[in-house]
Amino acid sequence: MVKRYLSLCSLEEALNLLKNSFVDPSRTELVPLIESLGRIVAAPIYAKYSVPEVNIAAMDGIAVKSRDTLDASDQSPVTLEECTLVNTGNIVPPSFDAVIMIEDTWQDGEKYLIRKSAAPGQHIRAAGEDIFENRLVLPRGHRIRAFDIGALATYGIVRINARMVNVGIIPTGSELVPLGVRPSPGQVVESNTIMAQVFLEAMGAHCTRLPIVRADPDEIKKAMVSAVETNDLVLISAGSSAGTRDYTSQVISSLGELIFHGVAVKPGKPVMLGKINQKPVIGLPGYPLAAQTALREFAAPLLEAWGLAPAPRHRVRAKLATPLSTDIGFDEFVPVTVGRIGPAYWGVPNSRSSGVQMATIKANGYSHIPAPVEGYSAGHELDVFLTTDPASIERTLIFSGTLDPALEELGIIAHDQGMFIHAVNTGNAGALIALKRHACHAAPMNLPASSLLADCPFILPHLSSMDLAFVHIAMIQQGIASHDSITLEDLTSLRYINTRKDSSTRMAFDQLLDSKGIDPSQIDGYHHEVANLKMVAAAIRNGHADAGMCTSGIAKAHGLEFLPLAREQYELAMHREMLADSRICTLISLINSPVYRNRLEYSGAYDTSRTGKIRSVSGDKTECEITFENNSLVLS
Amino acid sequence: MVKRYLSLCSLEEALNLLKNSFVDPSRTELVPLIESLGRIVAAPIYAKYSVPEVNIAAMDGIAVKSRDTLDASDQSPVTLEECTLVNTGNIVPPSFDAVIMIEDTWQDGEKYLIRKSAAPGQHIRAAGEDIFENRLVLPRGHRIRAFDIGALATYGIVRINARMVNVGIIPTGSELVPLGVRPSPGQVVESNTIMAQVFLEAMGAHCTRLPIVRADPDEIKKAMVSAVETNDLVLISAGSSAGTRDYTSQVISSLGELIFHGVAVKPGKPVMLGKINQKPVIGLPGYPLAAQTALREFAAPLLEAWGLAPAPRHRVRAKLATPLSTDIGFDEFVPVTVGRIGPAYWGVPNSRSSGVQMATIKANGYSHIPAPVEGYSAGHELDVFLTTDPASIERTLIFSGTLDPALEELGIIAHDQGMFIHAVNTGNAGALIALKRHACHAAPMNLPASSLLADCPFILPHLSSMDLAFVHIAMIQQGIASHDSITLEDLTSLRYINTRKDSSTRMAFDQLLDSKGIDPSQIDGYHHEVANLKMVAAAIRNGHADAGMCTSGIAKAHGLEFLPLAREQYELAMHREMLADSRICTLISLINSPVYRNRLEYSGAYDTSRTGKIRSVSGDKTECEITFENNSLVLS
Repeated sequence: MVKRYLSLCSLEEALNLLKNSFVDPSRTELVPLIESLGRIVAAPIYAKYSVPEVNIAAMDGIAVKSRDTLDASDQSPVTLEECTLVNTGNIVPPSFDAVIMIEDTWQDGEKYLIRKSAAPGQHIRAAGEDIFENRLVLPRGHRIRAFDIGALATYGIVRINARMVNVGIIPTGSELVPLGVRPSPGQVVESNTIMAQVFLEAMGAHCTRLPIVRADPDEIKKAMVSAVETNDLVLISAGSSAGTRDYTSQVISSLGELIFHGVAVKPGKPVMLGKINQKPVIGLPGYPLAAQTALREFAAPLLEAWGLAPAPRHRVRAKLATPLSTDIGFDEFVPVTVGRIGPAYWGVPNSRSSGVQMATIKANGYSHIPAPVEGYSAGHELDVFLTTDPASIERTLIFSGTLDPALEELGIIAHDQGMFIHAVNTGNAGALIALKRHACHAAPMNLPASSLLADCPFILPHLSSMDLAFVHIAMIQQGIASHDSITLEDLTSLRYINTRKDSSTRMAFDQLLDSKGIDPSQIDGYHHEVANLKMVAAAIRNGHADAGMCTSGIAKAHGLEFLPLAREQYELAMHREMLADSRICTLISLINSPVYRNRLEYSGAYDTSRTGKIRSVSGDKTECEITFENNSLVLS
Repeated sequence: MVKRYLSLCSLEEALNLLKNSFVDPSRTELVPLIESLGRIVAAPIYAKYSVPEVNIAAMDGIAVKSRDTLDASDQSPVTLEECTLVNTGNIVPPSFDAVIMIEDTWQDGEKYLIRKSAAPGQHIRAAGEDIFENRLVLPRGHRIRAFDIGALATYGIVRINARMVNVGIIPTGSELVPLGVRPSPGQVVESNTIMAQVFLEAMGAHCTRLPIVRADPDEIKKAMVSAVETNDLVLISAGSSAGTRDYTSQVISSLGELIFHGVAVKPGKPVMLGKINQKPVIGLPGYPLAAQTALREFAAPLLEAWGLAPAPRHRVRAKLATPLSTDIGFDEFVPVTVGRIGPAYWGVPNSRSSGVQMATIKANGYSHIPAPVEGYSAGHELDVFLTTDPASIERTLIFSGTLDPALEELGIIAHDQGMFIHAVNTGNAGALIALKRHACHAAPMNLPASSLLADCPFILPHLSSMDLAFVHIAMIQQGIASHDSITLEDLTSLRYINTRKDSSTRMAFDQLLDSKGIDPSQIDGYHHEVANLKMVAAAIRNGHADAGMCTSGIAKAHGLEFLPLAREQYELAMHREMLADSRICTLISLINSPVYRNRLEYSGAYDTSRTGKIRSVSGDKTECEITFENNSLVLS
């Protein structure tokens, strides 16, 4: 393997090099006021005239000289010698300095009589009340808001002198096809430069995307020369195919200087910085999440140093719902999904595989784990920068436990109610830990088919310390999936594929062997383990094994034969007080809905005869049934 | 005066009527992916194909069958019968289920030898690792983010089915001129519909603004009929001139139904709602801040009920820096400027005059004070919804005390350092209260010219309880401004204009009368008080008085004669620990800068010989001098 990075730069060093190696192009443009939302003011904006320009009546009444009214009282009314009628919005002549409302005056022939003195300035919108001519409205660097635009129009501003930067973006890679073309297997849509354009234009940059350049040094060089000539900053996006990145660094070195190649940051390690004709060239890694880091942590700060501004960044403090281990020496950026459980915010770290864009889509924020940190244990509090409306936190439910396709079906119908279920696969054991910590809204679990919770050996020890409720989702059929139809007697003569020791199917399989008196060593592949039931089915379908244990639903989805063996209950465990949470009530009513049952039954893998039933274990370990009727809970 | 509102609707009633009187037009449009930032997804988006579509090598190496490798170890290496070379990004054929890195293999003639087993799936990006074909990417109602767009491109999405609403906006009012025309006194630029368009388009609406309609019922009716025909929602913006609003309600009643006119909300009371051809018509008040309330609290929630979404709304808890009194029975919306003082957030309520748009511009947020509340005392904690980046809070300095133009000059140069000074006029007494509460960063005060702080009678009682530092801004000349040149002897024979009892000029004037043995009753206008020194000068200039006390700078700015009488120091008082705050350090270095001194001297009103000097009173009331050198403080 080729060693790509001779030495990794730290994030801090890289940012210093980025900010100190180039001269601000100080580019601005005149933007029509009505198109200026979100743009950054390049030079202070002053009012063209005072608003109002003269004193204006704020009421219908008479304009008076306040000094003439000083002695007026109920006992000694004053007849005004000088005054004039004004309506709201009329100009008040400078010789008058107050307005008296018409209902506070009495007519005395042609003249007006008053019984109360008027304070100077009363009921007058004074000239300059809003702003005086030539006074500062907005300073340099301000990001224009919608309501600023109304005020600027009022103050006579027609165009905004806004900060701008020209950015050229070059996509490279032989495996890329442009948006709109269906990629063949092994090809990918060129999406990184689209993302770069949208992200940087929201900061006020003007982006020009070049056509895709194949992995050819001469072609890359030609595109680079042209992009550098017409832009202040060039981004070159490397494909993920072998070689492309090396061509990019070669091209930069041949045309100018390669300042760094490789930064101790994850994802985004292959990011590079060059200087050609005094202009910065940033090399974006090919993997999408790595490219995101390069855009957010490198391109954006450079544009910020040049006077543009990123979208407002809002932060919440959240506790880690699951442990997070990171590489010491690397600044890591982790997509995080935050939900509120009781009064506390909890964050679930998402996949950090740099090709998994769904990790960013599912997250409502991200965290920056500094280089000296090796990771955090569950419960550790950290900053999460939000990527969505904070209201999304309220709509997020965190599940921790054993995942099953039945949960995905629930997630789809919950989405349409504006709720987002974020489920982490921690197994039955993880479910109980998360419940103990109050680090999840609910914990999906596989339980034995028995109706008595006390029959679940791994739950029993926890029943006294937690007051749990269990919402029944469905009865699931376990069994052996195989390519060709088999019987139990065939088990010792075929290639088996196994699952992890803590899974309920593995436990059921071990029980089966025990009850049949079969020694595991008789099973070819007993030690050949995959991580989940879908991988069992996929291995059988792809010919890597002949049989393995999974559920009837998964076997059916993979077109496999199925030998039913045992039934288990799929249930959602939660603290009983959670039943009072309106989001959980909505969720339970969704589980109870015919729509959800129909979806489960349609798949052919679930028995939904008890779906939506709730049972609860109170402190003294006796069970009671809870039914959910018309949005309220009934105990029986 | 005409009573406009027969009965006011409560905000809650009004919102119920708004949300329940109309049918969602359910309008959507197809938006090219690259233009979809911030748009709301109208129908769930599913992946067009799996990503990756097939298993892909994540490393350079050999693709193997993991089952073949089960027994490999250092003691008993395994020679692979079946395997194939793959590079990163290459397709791994389904007959192989793992990749072994090339450096972990040994060549054995034509064949490869390994010493370690491979786990199923090892170094493979599995088909569907990111997402499976037809799986949900984004649910209905999601607001598209920049990084979503990259993922959507990858998943083959080319266009977004986005929520949309057509909004017609009619400006009315005879005092209006269009943007780009210089208004004459008494005219205003038609800015409310510009603000409405920008605000609602940011939510995803399409707005059509009609030309300005004069205050004429037939013209308004014609415009309304046309706008209702082609839009889902019509906004009609009334001018602030008398009559316009009544025409609007007449027109709505004649074409359809007036649902409400007048809501118990401030600003924004005149807002109205009508229904014409089953479509909603919202009447926006003419005053800009009232129009803002109507847009944010009425138009936006209606569009939200129709599937659009406002920009994310972020919130901070802040303590009130000054008391806030509100009208019981009215829901009030108050522009608030939030700053951080030590660990606490403090909010200053801004002007609520509905014509003062600068109040919204200067604020970084707003608070909603519910109708049952009469107001809050200083220190009360309340929610502030931010209208800027939260980082703006860190750049905001709150001053409370006696204001002087010297502070505005400081504000202008501080702006260019990215700092925002928000100064509240609370007088010298208010300055001391704010310091006691730690509710300001610094408190500008007028002090006697003496160099000994103990000579300030109103500070003396506080010196033992607070450890204060005083930064000298300038020496200010007080005296009597007049239209024609006068002497002290003329005081009893001319029309005087006075200021508030707690102002230092008023105190100086009273001392002067005392020392000269003049009885206040001898002064014509002694009881004729205005709120500040600028109003004193304006009253003299406009002929409402002949003389009054102010500073040489203000007199000069108003073109008045000036009789110098006393000197006072303008100083910035702060808790001594505040000197360690980096923002205060920047501020003091700005006060020390030649730029600032030059600006003060240019105005001709200040003596800057001691500008930037700091004195401090330690706990034992002895004074010491602090100098500020090279960004650090030196005590002497």
